[in-house]
Amino acid sequence: MNMYLLNKAAACQRELFTRHTKPIDCFHLQQTESGWEAVDRMPFSGRTPRLNKGDSLCLDFGTHWVGYLSFSAQPVGGAADAPAYLRIIAGERLCEIGEDPDDYHGGLGKGWLQVSHLHLDELPCTVELPRRYAFRYLKIEVLDTSCQYGISLSDIGCQAVSAVQEEDAAPLVTDDPFLNRMDEVSLRTLRNCAQDVFEDGPKRDRRLWLGDLRLQALTAYRTYRAHTLARRCLYLFAGLTGEDGGVSACVYTKPTPHADDLRLFDYSLFFVSCLSDYWEATGDTETVTDLWPTAWRQLELAAAELDERGVIRDKDTWWCFLDWNDDLNKQAGAQGVFIMAVRQGLLLSKRFGTPEQQDRLNGWLEIALKGSRQVLWDKHLHLFVSGQNRQISWASQVWQVLAEVWPTEESRELLLRTVEQAPAVGMVTPYMFHHWVEALLSVGLTDLAKQELRRYWGGMLKAGADCFWELYDPTDPDRSPYGSPVINSCCHAWSCTPAYFFRRYPELTENS
Amino acid sequence: MNMYLLNKAAACQRELFTRHTKPIDCFHLQQTESGWEAVDRMPFSGRTPRLNKGDSLCLDFGTHWVGYLSFSAQPVGGAADAPAYLRIIAGERLCEIGEDPDDYHGGLGKGWLQVSHLHLDELPCTVELPRRYAFRYLKIEVLDTSCQYGISLSDIGCQAVSAVQEEDAAPLVTDDPFLNRMDEVSLRTLRNCAQDVFEDGPKRDRRLWLGDLRLQALTAYRTYRAHTLARRCLYLFAGLTGEDGGVSACVYTKPTPHADDLRLFDYSLFFVSCLSDYWEATGDTETVTDLWPTAWRQLELAAAELDERGVIRDKDTWWCFLDWNDDLNKQAGAQGVFIMAVRQGLLLSKRFGTPEQQDRLNGWLEIALKGSRQVLWDKHLHLFVSGQNRQISWASQVWQVLAEVWPTEESRELLLRTVEQAPAVGMVTPYMFHHWVEALLSVGLTDLAKQELRRYWGGMLKAGADCFWELYDPTDPDRSPYGSPVINSCCHAWSCTPAYFFRRYPELTENS
Repeated sequence: MNMYLLNKAAACQRELFTRHTKPIDCFHLQQTESGWEAVDRMPFSGRTPRLNKGDSLCLDFGTHWVGYLSFSAQPVGGAADAPAYLRIIAGERLCEIGEDPDDYHGGLGKGWLQVSHLHLDELPCTVELPRRYAFRYLKIEVLDTSCQYGISLSDIGCQAVSAVQEEDAAPLVTDDPFLNRMDEVSLRTLRNCAQDVFEDGPKRDRRLWLGDLRLQALTAYRTYRAHTLARRCLYLFAGLTGEDGGVSACVYTKPTPHADDLRLFDYSLFFVSCLSDYWEATGDTETVTDLWPTAWRQLELAAAELDERGVIRDKDTWWCFLDWNDDLNKQAGAQGVFIMAVRQGLLLSKRFGTPEQQDRLNGWLEIALKGSRQVLWDKHLHLFVSGQNRQISWASQVWQVLAEVWPTEESRELLLRTVEQAPAVGMVTPYMFHHWVEALLSVGLTDLAKQELRRYWGGMLKAGADCFWELYDPTDPDRSPYGSPVINSCCHAWSCTPAYFFRRYPELTENS
Repeated sequence: MNMYLLNKAAACQRELFTRHTKPIDCFHLQQTESGWEAVDRMPFSGRTPRLNKGDSLCLDFGTHWVGYLSFSAQPVGGAADAPAYLRIIAGERLCEIGEDPDDYHGGLGKGWLQVSHLHLDELPCTVELPRRYAFRYLKIEVLDTSCQYGISLSDIGCQAVSAVQEEDAAPLVTDDPFLNRMDEVSLRTLRNCAQDVFEDGPKRDRRLWLGDLRLQALTAYRTYRAHTLARRCLYLFAGLTGEDGGVSACVYTKPTPHADDLRLFDYSLFFVSCLSDYWEATGDTETVTDLWPTAWRQLELAAAELDERGVIRDKDTWWCFLDWNDDLNKQAGAQGVFIMAVRQGLLLSKRFGTPEQQDRLNGWLEIALKGSRQVLWDKHLHLFVSGQNRQISWASQVWQVLAEVWPTEESRELLLRTVEQAPAVGMVTPYMFHHWVEALLSVGLTDLAKQELRRYWGGMLKAGADCFWELYDPTDPDRSPYGSPVINSCCHAWSCTPAYFFRRYPELTENS
């Protein structure tokens, strides 16, 4: 734990922006074959009718917010001779307030479900729920009052919080309402994940992950210009490295900053990428001077994994992320991430490093490019292969393209060949789709990139997304790898990048 | 609402005494044919082992306390990558932590059950539960953590609160260990009910009821000398009278003092009794001068219910309490309460009233005594009867004796006759049993009173009571009129009077 760096992280802490939001509509829930539906929608008057034991009420806050709920409660019909006992469920999607949280038996901790049991011992009263919720919908269930009285709720609201404000975002210039809508949802996704740090998902996980940070920061530089928040996150990772100087895949900030044990090959290298992106966005020499040694150390540790052929060693463990696809062999993707990070490290080293570091970086780049071209490239298939079983996946091609292993023209052919051959080992997350689109744009396949944005992120919009999701399978929008869709995170940082693409590649928003 | 009187009530508020208490033992629960049992008892080390999803732990705080729980929680085995989700149940008796609160479907509000769902979003942490609990036993259930970590709890404690301290109680002089034990439990019952006001039960109801107040104050004057608390309660009732000047059966103090709609004939008159007892205990002329008009008004209102025969009119509604016995006709008991209150009012009126008030009181006394002797007394049965159907009950005899309708000798014969004939309409609550014992002692039937104390309150002791209960049926200690014993109140003010009897009637504790 490096207190110099952690103090610098602490100095970047800012008070969050707050905004008071209220429910717009009330409605009833109906379970249909295609899932939960809001029926009997009515504008919410601001005060509930008398609610008795067994009654419930559903409210819609209009869109997705992250914040703190509060309400007032009054006894109706008589004095409150027993505590009112409520269960309140907040949900990003209708299924979360439709399903009974007690029926959840998925793989992730039940503690993530946004359910709260409240005893109101003194009535009338004002209640401020202590937990922060990420939600659009709210269900209020009266578990009991007494036979003497019912309750009515009023002043129901949410003190929404974020490190950024939507009105500060750089505007997008396009006439296309669909792209505008996609941009708006991207910006909301980023806003709701931008808190004390860049969280991966404000409902579930809430951690600062390096992979998510990279995409959030890239988007934030071009939208909210949240440079200080990005700096804070970089200092946190650097201040919490392990004994060998390696950064964790994620860190926690509460109750005090601490790192998770998890180390991932690609995420560690993204510290270099993040620092490089930060330098490009800010030109802040003080910060990059402070953090270059940490970036360098990630490169050193990663380079130690190169084998004699110039290829990153494959492992049986969960050593590298790339995508939530258990079938994916990570070797070629990891190699791509390494080469990209070495290139970014080289640029930084010219200003912040030593000549010796530059020499070593040039050496690693040469070796790794050779490894990619000679070992991972299949000359007959004209595709990159990965691992002992020479797996062909979308991810391997994407990362080798982003690493610029072949010249642009050949990379473009490779991506078109990938589309044509459609390898069975596919892409699963918006995170991986981001890199797919970035690869397409890097080689000038703008129309295809646009098409993919419309198909994938546009698919979430058509499925009713208020923010972009952690996971999206166009063939099954309710799919959950955790055993239940109610635990999915439906506002997830790594999905916010359309707003980045639109501003970095203006050709995307020009009329085609 | 009379602000002069309510301000006087507020001026009597005192900070509560606090005492830090800790769990003594941990144990497992076992359900047997005779109920829940604590097995595998072990002294509690102060720190739990690692608890994972589905684990639970039972703790015994040694005896009954009323207060605020707190504990510390640490993650074990890895960083807490999800909130820990706990359910904590506090119980006065084992059945409350043995039964699942979700299975409760009794007649009283579920909100009384002392269950709390806690999300620990940041670990390690210290948790202070906001609700006050009345309990001896605690069950901690881990609903979930994550596959990455478990939790361990330490510093588990309760900040016990009361308006009085046991060490301040006037000691009881007796060598009888059983009576000493009965006194100790009485004192604990009173201590745990003595809070911001005299509550009826610190677990369930928590209200200030006039009937309970009377017995608590009587006991408190002779034990803790909690005169200020009694004064506060009297001012609250007087400050919250209805438009006609009548006092409510109970009042609430939070969020601000307010009265319940409920009016009970006997409870209203107990305002007079309470004031008379307070005067006898304190000689505080200022307070009695302030409150005499309220006492007088209760007498006036009650006297208006006398019919032309001098008998209080019977009603079909729930107009008078006396006991939790739905079969009981209240007329003769109410008449007894009225006569007693008029006698007490007469004494007060000599100092605080007007000659005209004295005249009216004397008139009511004469009329009501005549009504009792001529209308309610059955000359053939030599018992008091009640209501149109001339019901014979224990309660009617008891209250006519306490009203001194007949001379002592005849009252003694009446009570012995009652025992012999054992009317079918019996006594149900410790509250009614109190008046039975008081009646026996008032006519010198000391041995019988002692026998009843040992049988009834001693029965609770033998059943394991840490405090005396709201309800006790010697033939079925688990009986609940509310559909489930888990909702019964097992520390209930109106059961605390053995400590009063032992000190008021020293003959009870002399060797027989």
